[in-house]
Amino acid sequence: MPSISKRGEVVPMSPFRKLIPIADKAKEAGKRVYHLNIGQPDIETPAYALQRVRATDMKVLEYSPAEGLSSYRKKLTEYYRKFHVEISADEVIVTTGASEAIQFAFLACLDQQEEVIVPEPFYANYNGFAQIADVRIRPITCHIEDGFALPDKAAFEKMVTTDTKGIFITNPNNPTGCFYSRESLEELAGLCRKYSLFLFVDEVYREFCYDGQEFFSALNLKGAEEHVIVLDSISKRYSACGARVGSLVTRNKAVLEAVARYAKLRLSPPGLGQILAEATLEMEETYMHEVTAEYARRRDVVYQRLSRMDGVASYRPGGAFYCFAKFPIDSAERFCRWMLEDFDLNGATVMLSPGEGFYATPGLGTDEVRIAYVLHTDALHAAMDCLQAGLEAYPGRLQGAEKVSANAGAR
Amino acid sequence: MPSISKRGEVVPMSPFRKLIPIADKAKEAGKRVYHLNIGQPDIETPAYALQRVRATDMKVLEYSPAEGLSSYRKKLTEYYRKFHVEISADEVIVTTGASEAIQFAFLACLDQQEEVIVPEPFYANYNGFAQIADVRIRPITCHIEDGFALPDKAAFEKMVTTDTKGIFITNPNNPTGCFYSRESLEELAGLCRKYSLFLFVDEVYREFCYDGQEFFSALNLKGAEEHVIVLDSISKRYSACGARVGSLVTRNKAVLEAVARYAKLRLSPPGLGQILAEATLEMEETYMHEVTAEYARRRDVVYQRLSRMDGVASYRPGGAFYCFAKFPIDSAERFCRWMLEDFDLNGATVMLSPGEGFYATPGLGTDEVRIAYVLHTDALHAAMDCLQAGLEAYPGRLQGAEKVSANAGAR
Repeated sequence: MPSISKRGEVVPMSPFRKLIPIADKAKEAGKRVYHLNIGQPDIETPAYALQRVRATDMKVLEYSPAEGLSSYRKKLTEYYRKFHVEISADEVIVTTGASEAIQFAFLACLDQQEEVIVPEPFYANYNGFAQIADVRIRPITCHIEDGFALPDKAAFEKMVTTDTKGIFITNPNNPTGCFYSRESLEELAGLCRKYSLFLFVDEVYREFCYDGQEFFSALNLKGAEEHVIVLDSISKRYSACGARVGSLVTRNKAVLEAVARYAKLRLSPPGLGQILAEATLEMEETYMHEVTAEYARRRDVVYQRLSRMDGVASYRPGGAFYCFAKFPIDSAERFCRWMLEDFDLNGATVMLSPGEGFYATPGLGTDEVRIAYVLHTDALHAAMDCLQAGLEAYPGRLQGAEKVSANAGAR
Repeated sequence: MPSISKRGEVVPMSPFRKLIPIADKAKEAGKRVYHLNIGQPDIETPAYALQRVRATDMKVLEYSPAEGLSSYRKKLTEYYRKFHVEISADEVIVTTGASEAIQFAFLACLDQQEEVIVPEPFYANYNGFAQIADVRIRPITCHIEDGFALPDKAAFEKMVTTDTKGIFITNPNNPTGCFYSRESLEELAGLCRKYSLFLFVDEVYREFCYDGQEFFSALNLKGAEEHVIVLDSISKRYSACGARVGSLVTRNKAVLEAVARYAKLRLSPPGLGQILAEATLEMEETYMHEVTAEYARRRDVVYQRLSRMDGVASYRPGGAFYCFAKFPIDSAERFCRWMLEDFDLNGATVMLSPGEGFYATPGLGTDEVRIAYVLHTDALHAAMDCLQAGLEAYPGRLQGAEKVSANAGAR
């Protein structure tokens, strides 16, 4: 009998996936589980866009061009203009979700065993994409105490080796919710120019910036046009995760050509998803304003509730719909499991993602969790009630834990 | 300025892609181009299935489970039963086209630099998928003279090294149209058992078998249950290339687990495409019978017309909708280019795929082309008129070329 590959045995798994079977058991046993573990929004996909899919009169669902429908690429350039980004349709390649955009970026820019510097905690699936491309993630640690602000320039410089090909950030950040300012980005761009590095920026949460902060796209970094590669997706923006439509945007012609070659290999991105995606760009802006306002309210609920919990370290996330929190507990993984298996408050509990899996450095994040505020505020309050009661009742709670709370907005 | 990766510079391209800009120019100049270069069928996608997409009443287009919608996986097991295959829904993982299924199979089964034996000519994108996974394709040459029948057992055995992890075939074959019989498959299965190899079988054309030949799925190979991995797609079957829905089917639990891990990384296959795919499995069988009969008629047109062309070596393909032909010319690439740039018959010409790109062994296929019979019979006749006149007028035609014709059905 043939054996599977070594890499197939050790594919890094998402931290929130491991507990799913336990959550399923809890639900089978009649427990209500509030899911704050995964970024699947409950927000409705724009009815207008779904209607456009329903109204399609195609006879043959053909391959689209490998780089995406030209009409959609063109409309995307208008969308990016909202963020003062001037690009041409040729500089946008449509992908099967941001997942594929990230894989294409790794393959096109890094050879095997080359390195990319990524602030940790980071979106855990980057580990898997790096494994597929056989490239190495070099983590640079951020800290909950200052709301996961980016480390300073000197810290980044220390990480650069002869194998470093780029810096990879997510702005606003998943899993921390940290919002990176124009100044932070300009500092990184300076480093990328100095060391001839790519600057990969996953901007899938760009619409979700709170407290009046204006999002600054890396595509607007002057003098870094050949360095910047933006990864994007409609999944979160339009609550259309199942469409599997993303994009890769860059002005670097050599990168575009290589990515187009990889795109041609897999023939085309999803056709029906692209119809939906194109329709989202013909809508009124109201949808997005309402959605952003709703997430801001949710952010406030989570932040306020966490701030009032004894011994919990937290901060005010500036964007996306995630937040990290540090609990006075022995192990976040054990706590998350216990919440599902052994705890309930009036028949309900909450599912969170243990923080450890978002760090590449061993031993970090073991008392932290990621919270995705993807439920409406009533459900969020109920979930926070469960969390608060759970933290008090948890047998592995550390004694004498102090209440710590930081406030991290833009940085 | 950072440089792109070495691999990004040398991504293997599909042979039919290179000439697209030249075909575009010909069309801009007013020439009609019959496209026999790409497997994009003109057949209509089942209206019933498209209607089901239109009738969807979803509010949120969520991620589907990473392994695919469970209702769809279950229906697929019923579909496979038509081919006497007994599998469970757990043994089917839904992918983003067969392209992704192939990549998952390589990653899950082969480590870097391990080898897979592939009869050539083969679907050229396998080269690219192998490059992404950093695995090596070891070609075993088939010959047009006997309709690209599989080489014998001894020839395969000679190719096995300590790095060989599997044999990869496409049945019926793209690009040759060769149909592999149960006996051929059993021979390969025997080899796979003997040397502990995987047997990867791309069966996306299984519905297209002609002359009453019954398709034998590799999933029915007794004693090879742990070896066989089938790659599949609805693209050709239901003329739904843009849906991007495929599947990977195996009974090997370790492979299933590894593939599921890779599937989780990219979150989910396309949601709207899966609705369409599921609907195709609720239809009457009439659609498929009509489509297969239509392709059989087209196969006959292409075969008969090629047989009557002086100096052309051809054969009767047993399945899929492709055929290879050997022309009495100096270079197929030059000929295909010349047909687009310098030739027309009453304002029309034909686009073919040069054969060389389907071989991994340098120097093979230089006077061969792949013909995809994806147009209705009238258009096919017109295309064959162009081809015939083009071959006679082509300045690089070899003199004294004999007419050779082989007849290759099932083998």
